[in-house]
Amino acid sequence: MQEIEQQATEIDFKWPLGYSAGATKSGIKQNKLDLGWLVSEVPASAAGVYTTNQFQAAPTKLTKATISADQQLQAVILNSGNANSCTGKLGKQNALKEQNMIADKLNIAPDLVGVASTGIIGKQLPMAKIEQGIDALQLSDSIAVTEAVLTTDTHPKTIAVQLDLSGKQVTISGFCKGSGMIHPNMATMLGFVTTDASVDGDYLQQLLIDETNNTFNQITVDGDTSTNDMVVLMANGMAGNVEIDDSSSEKEKFALAIHQVLAYLAKQIAEDGEGASKLVEVNVKSAATELEAKQVAKEIVGSSLVKAMLFGEDANWGRIMDAIGKTDASLDVDHVNVWLNGIQLVKNSEPATFDLQPARDSLSEHEVVIDVDLHAGNSVGTAWGCDLTYKYVQINAAYE
Amino acid sequence: MQEIEQQATEIDFKWPLGYSAGATKSGIKQNKLDLGWLVSEVPASAAGVYTTNQFQAAPTKLTKATISADQQLQAVILNSGNANSCTGKLGKQNALKEQNMIADKLNIAPDLVGVASTGIIGKQLPMAKIEQGIDALQLSDSIAVTEAVLTTDTHPKTIAVQLDLSGKQVTISGFCKGSGMIHPNMATMLGFVTTDASVDGDYLQQLLIDETNNTFNQITVDGDTSTNDMVVLMANGMAGNVEIDDSSSEKEKFALAIHQVLAYLAKQIAEDGEGASKLVEVNVKSAATELEAKQVAKEIVGSSLVKAMLFGEDANWGRIMDAIGKTDASLDVDHVNVWLNGIQLVKNSEPATFDLQPARDSLSEHEVVIDVDLHAGNSVGTAWGCDLTYKYVQINAAYE
Repeated sequence: MQEIEQQATEIDFKWPLGYSAGATKSGIKQNKLDLGWLVSEVPASAAGVYTTNQFQAAPTKLTKATISADQQLQAVILNSGNANSCTGKLGKQNALKEQNMIADKLNIAPDLVGVASTGIIGKQLPMAKIEQGIDALQLSDSIAVTEAVLTTDTHPKTIAVQLDLSGKQVTISGFCKGSGMIHPNMATMLGFVTTDASVDGDYLQQLLIDETNNTFNQITVDGDTSTNDMVVLMANGMAGNVEIDDSSSEKEKFALAIHQVLAYLAKQIAEDGEGASKLVEVNVKSAATELEAKQVAKEIVGSSLVKAMLFGEDANWGRIMDAIGKTDASLDVDHVNVWLNGIQLVKNSEPATFDLQPARDSLSEHEVVIDVDLHAGNSVGTAWGCDLTYKYVQINAAYE
Repeated sequence: MQEIEQQATEIDFKWPLGYSAGATKSGIKQNKLDLGWLVSEVPASAAGVYTTNQFQAAPTKLTKATISADQQLQAVILNSGNANSCTGKLGKQNALKEQNMIADKLNIAPDLVGVASTGIIGKQLPMAKIEQGIDALQLSDSIAVTEAVLTTDTHPKTIAVQLDLSGKQVTISGFCKGSGMIHPNMATMLGFVTTDASVDGDYLQQLLIDETNNTFNQITVDGDTSTNDMVVLMANGMAGNVEIDDSSSEKEKFALAIHQVLAYLAKQIAEDGEGASKLVEVNVKSAATELEAKQVAKEIVGSSLVKAMLFGEDANWGRIMDAIGKTDASLDVDHVNVWLNGIQLVKNSEPATFDLQPARDSLSEHEVVIDVDLHAGNSVGTAWGCDLTYKYVQINAAYE
């Protein structure tokens, strides 16, 4: 991927105009924030992307149906500690109940309320606790909800940026959770982005799909796609800009800012992957298509052997070639080049002349960058991941 | 997969009629058997299957061209410690040189000689050592070649079976190496099966493709497909049976015996995967197609979260559902069932009623069996793998 143009200015995290939020300790988890909400003063244009896992969780299905009906949303209720997944009819009823309780509390239509859950699979939500929790929820400029969504994440992941659209200052604020739980069943990813920009709902949906493909869909921690993954983007128009739609002259500017927010959050998730000690970025260039560039980049960051090699801080490039060759992407089999932290390891598919020690030394850095040239076209793609460590095995095998 | 019918009788490992072999310490590795050969008295019908990795190694390409020309082979030269992969033109020349040296030594045509290598990627073969080693190679009923092919395998993997074809006793003998090396670049898999049966070459090739798809292609240790994978099957006809071809009444019997040999070797590789403490078998039934059954089975054995869970000996079935749902296989999303070592964990896609302790206790066994019912058809499929352990990370990160 090209250097991202920093069109939008990063600011300290806060909600855009017209949004407020709250969080509480409902008791799903022991003495931790585990239930929160995010509310816009007015209905917002909304877009969502959802897990491709066939066992979509009840809240994920409900939110998908709710948003896709009219591309509108005004509030989201979310919890950690329980995924409400593989929970059958009762699970669906419970997600609906949450939706209705929030609608009642805000005196808005239920189809303006999204529901998101993350946590253990196959257990029914403790509805008494959730009902009490919803009663207790309040609204303010607090950002505690960014903490209530976490599981084994080591810190909240937030970003806010500002840009100018048709002379109005627009704010975009995003937060998400990454992978792993204290009593985990699988990595679940949730992301929420709010903006006070005025944006056409259909355009917003297409933009979110496009940019998710370049960001969240290009990270991997362990190759497992959860049943609850969801990213929701809301735009309430309170900044007063001229509405952005597919024909707007400023749509590229807005899209770049959305990309900036999503890419930042995606990288944060990769960096804070279970047990991770390093953030890995793979940039593939000269691919035949963008899809193939992204495929090769993701194959490399997903390879267990590459991930273990990065943990071991060894410049064992054969594993990178192996991952490239495993794909069916077009490539010039005799002219592939690979760089590790700027040091060329492979030239024309054969060992380049390089000093092993500087290459190894560069691997002691927290961030590792792998560049690949497929010599097959003009497309580029990037993916992010982390290394494979003893701690990953420990978290997922010995977590009790 | 159905219970394999044991049509063929397992015997102590030995070469079939007309085959002999040898191995030597050529010096590629330090004071270890690292070069070997396998020779038939007469040209044999031959079949091969090869890695799908786009960076096929020089010996892999050469052997593929050699066998596919006329489905015949009389000898194979093999080495461990160096994969002759990503070695450019010189690598090709060196593989050709090995082929010609063996042809000269045996006084046969070069196109009757296969070449196989496994080991580090991106280093040229030490040809002086290999030439001396080839000079030193002798032929006998020794099975030392099954040791010369090993890398970090903890033991040789061999099997021999006998069956009766048209009144003649036929022997099938197979050996292979699995994944990992002391100074590893990636997992490489090599398999060699010899038989004294008389078999038509074209039929032999189709049979090997079919049965490899059900056996070797259904194992995974770490999801990485090497540049050197190869399985070669030779049939020299010295048992004197009526030739087996696609119209033979006994072809099923022979195919079952080949399946038995390949499945045994494949399971041995999974069981001896890098760092593995457990052999995992996943059986998927009631799938829409055999391909989808195999796809789902392989997704489950390949999931890092499932593998870590098995190492941790926890019956965390959400991860199994997650792996199933990640595929695009047809399934009845409300009627999927999962069993772990015979204990039903999931019934109709919801938690079954089961005692956690017996399920956990059963996980302390060396072999773990996961059964899945997709409720979508009548097809079955099986895959084999191993758990993800600290030792896997250690072998691949801290191997120096």
